[in-house]
Amino acid sequence: MKTLVEALLAVLPADSVSVDPETLGRCSHDDAEWAPIGSPAVVVFAATVDEVAATMRVAAERGTPVVPRGAGTGLSGGANAVDGCIVLSLERMTRIVEVETAERYAVVEAGVLNDDLRRHVAASGLWYPPDPASQAISTIGGNVATNAGGICCVKYGVTRDYVLGLTVVLADGSVVELGRTTAKGVTGYDLTALMVGSEGTLGIVVEVTLKLLPLGGREERAVVGYFRSLPEAGAAVAAVTAAGIVPSALELIDRTCLDAVSAWQGWDLPVGATALLLAKVDEPGERGEILAAQIADLFAGAGGDRIERADDADEIDRLFRARRLAYPALERLGPVLTEDVCVPRAMVPEMLTRIEQAAADNDVVIANIAHAGDGDLHPLIIAPEGDDAARARAKTAFDRIVADCRALGGTVTGEHGVGLLKLDGAAAELSPAVLRLHRAVKSALDPQGILNPGKAFPNGD
Amino acid sequence: MKTLVEALLAVLPADSVSVDPETLGRCSHDDAEWAPIGSPAVVVFAATVDEVAATMRVAAERGTPVVPRGAGTGLSGGANAVDGCIVLSLERMTRIVEVETAERYAVVEAGVLNDDLRRHVAASGLWYPPDPASQAISTIGGNVATNAGGICCVKYGVTRDYVLGLTVVLADGSVVELGRTTAKGVTGYDLTALMVGSEGTLGIVVEVTLKLLPLGGREERAVVGYFRSLPEAGAAVAAVTAAGIVPSALELIDRTCLDAVSAWQGWDLPVGATALLLAKVDEPGERGEILAAQIADLFAGAGGDRIERADDADEIDRLFRARRLAYPALERLGPVLTEDVCVPRAMVPEMLTRIEQAAADNDVVIANIAHAGDGDLHPLIIAPEGDDAARARAKTAFDRIVADCRALGGTVTGEHGVGLLKLDGAAAELSPAVLRLHRAVKSALDPQGILNPGKAFPNGD
Repeated sequence: MKTLVEALLAVLPADSVSVDPETLGRCSHDDAEWAPIGSPAVVVFAATVDEVAATMRVAAERGTPVVPRGAGTGLSGGANAVDGCIVLSLERMTRIVEVETAERYAVVEAGVLNDDLRRHVAASGLWYPPDPASQAISTIGGNVATNAGGICCVKYGVTRDYVLGLTVVLADGSVVELGRTTAKGVTGYDLTALMVGSEGTLGIVVEVTLKLLPLGGREERAVVGYFRSLPEAGAAVAAVTAAGIVPSALELIDRTCLDAVSAWQGWDLPVGATALLLAKVDEPGERGEILAAQIADLFAGAGGDRIERADDADEIDRLFRARRLAYPALERLGPVLTEDVCVPRAMVPEMLTRIEQAAADNDVVIANIAHAGDGDLHPLIIAPEGDDAARARAKTAFDRIVADCRALGGTVTGEHGVGLLKLDGAAAELSPAVLRLHRAVKSALDPQGILNPGKAFPNGD
Repeated sequence: MKTLVEALLAVLPADSVSVDPETLGRCSHDDAEWAPIGSPAVVVFAATVDEVAATMRVAAERGTPVVPRGAGTGLSGGANAVDGCIVLSLERMTRIVEVETAERYAVVEAGVLNDDLRRHVAASGLWYPPDPASQAISTIGGNVATNAGGICCVKYGVTRDYVLGLTVVLADGSVVELGRTTAKGVTGYDLTALMVGSEGTLGIVVEVTLKLLPLGGREERAVVGYFRSLPEAGAAVAAVTAAGIVPSALELIDRTCLDAVSAWQGWDLPVGATALLLAKVDEPGERGEILAAQIADLFAGAGGDRIERADDADEIDRLFRARRLAYPALERLGPVLTEDVCVPRAMVPEMLTRIEQAAADNDVVIANIAHAGDGDLHPLIIAPEGDDAARARAKTAFDRIVADCRALGGTVTGEHGVGLLKLDGAAAELSPAVLRLHRAVKSALDPQGILNPGKAFPNGD
């Protein structure tokens, strides 16, 4: 019998198959801290749908696990290798197949970067809204696999809201076209939606048809303000919601972030500043003016301090600078595990308070960036390198945050995916009957269990 | 062994179980013309989730098929009985369980009418957008089962875009909670989306968690205009799209509709009027004014005649009167089969032309109402009662319309569902590999095949 590599080389170009140790290492994991990493047998760099299908046929014949990856920017370990697997990289599949301006959709290969798509369709007056923080470096295929969110999703929805159709290579190497290009369509089951967020455990997404919006007709305005307490910031968020305003961004950064940024940049924070809220609206003209003024008033009414407004791009950029610098400021303190929990938006202050307590009780540094407008929090847990005791305490805090999120009616992952890091959380969140449903669907589509085994939900294997 | 009715009466209140012939007849079908209707053994009127679960346990034990129904307003035969089945009516499950104003969602039982939900949440300043034409009489459960669309969906999306979570009774009578109440969430597979539009073939939807929008902040403005040819009307629609405008309604009614309405109402149409376009925008204030004026200009530029604008509710109502009266005007001519095909929006004029040709070639009356803004057409085929030859010709025209829609890159059902009427169309649209996927998912969730057998996709059984 041929070896795995021989079998792959028999059906793929030589330069698509690598066993180079540096390549194996680089392609064996995503950006998640702490998640276990297996040793892949080989990396395949597929350049076409046919090459993905050929790879899957080899894998199916031999029962070899396949771990698909885009750019490896995931934060939950969904692209981490399992021992002996084929890592199937789609990073060479970067073709923008079609942009249909009259129907407002684009067809792209899985390896296209989010920002490249964005720039490309902007030339046709179109806009792809989902904006994960990784947008400059993450692929559309990865965005689809994790159902990526982002900042503007509070108004414009997440990746799944833009996926009209998919080309998917199944576990047996067959290729299916799911979904449609029309604006509406209800023919058969919504297998497109089933694939979105399934982290490569049901099929390999190779091509994506994405709904687009008109690029024009929006004008951004920003409002920011400091708050002395988390409940005050929470009251401001609640007031915006209660006023019926749907902002295009509503972000919060907490005191630990603010301290890290101001220490780094030499900024002078207001006395007692505990949180900074950053909002945007994008309605054009008079309406945008009215909404921005209303948000500023609501911030002030909730106790906000140093409230500032901006309506030109540079000024908006300046006001949002603290948000942009928060992550790099924290990385200066040590490796950052980016947590992701989503609670009812009214629970954001309570959840932040509980996170502060978890940090204090376990003597770890935890900073918070939150998509406050949709209740999605990213506690950033810093565990100094090489300090096993600190890491164990950090893990205790992580588990407590997940449990607290559940206790407040939340979900254990808002937009990063289950991957490997949230398997325990998913087991707590999904009932035994729902887990049985997951297993039934997984077995139906991947009877051998070779597609990214062990990811996305606790499969009990 | 107990009879089916005895077994049901052993676990359900006596008044929930009916074998009354009039009830069996009334509950054996939906509003689809032409779809085959089987003879049910019994109708169960479940009032609680437990009663649905008890019914499913009886059915599972005996292998009896179950056909769920809401208000029976479906247009594809999805709720039509199969011989010997239990018809499981959810019309008594009308409880609005919760309206959460801070998080903007509602939890309702499946039997709540769309309009009742709408009125109820309006009292809390909230809005449920999906607006199928049946909104006054159709249930949310039915809307979910068919992924119902409507007029405002061109801007606000369809039912699936608002379903955050579901309570579903599975084939074996177990009850699962799918989805979430938070704004975001990616824990596990999106089984919620898989259930939406699955026409009761994967589970019985008993409770629905729906995302809501703020009620305020919108101001409706209408623009209508007559066109002398379908290509001119098509050019007007394309011009609105190209201008980056996303209207909150963009409807077309064709000459046959116009003739039926004007004959009935004694209206005076412009000479040579072939189509009427009806648009709405809902941006408030100055912005809405600008957009409405822009649409009026674009209509005029494309050759529109008698262009009128309105910005108060009564006037808008008057301008949209022809749209509202089209269906009843046609029903005066005979039973109406409401077709539903969705093509790329640029193909709407070509599709309408082909439909006219199919009508002429087969000597049947076919009128058209179209959601022109999203390419979803409703050819209304009128086959006089008791005229078998006419009905055969109408069926030939129906099949040709489905084939033409496919030839133009469309999908065989935009928003009404496959039910029974579109099984052939679905078989043509979905590849053998995609149909295998459907069967695999169906078998995984309903191994006995008792849930609404023969609906939603061609199962080959």
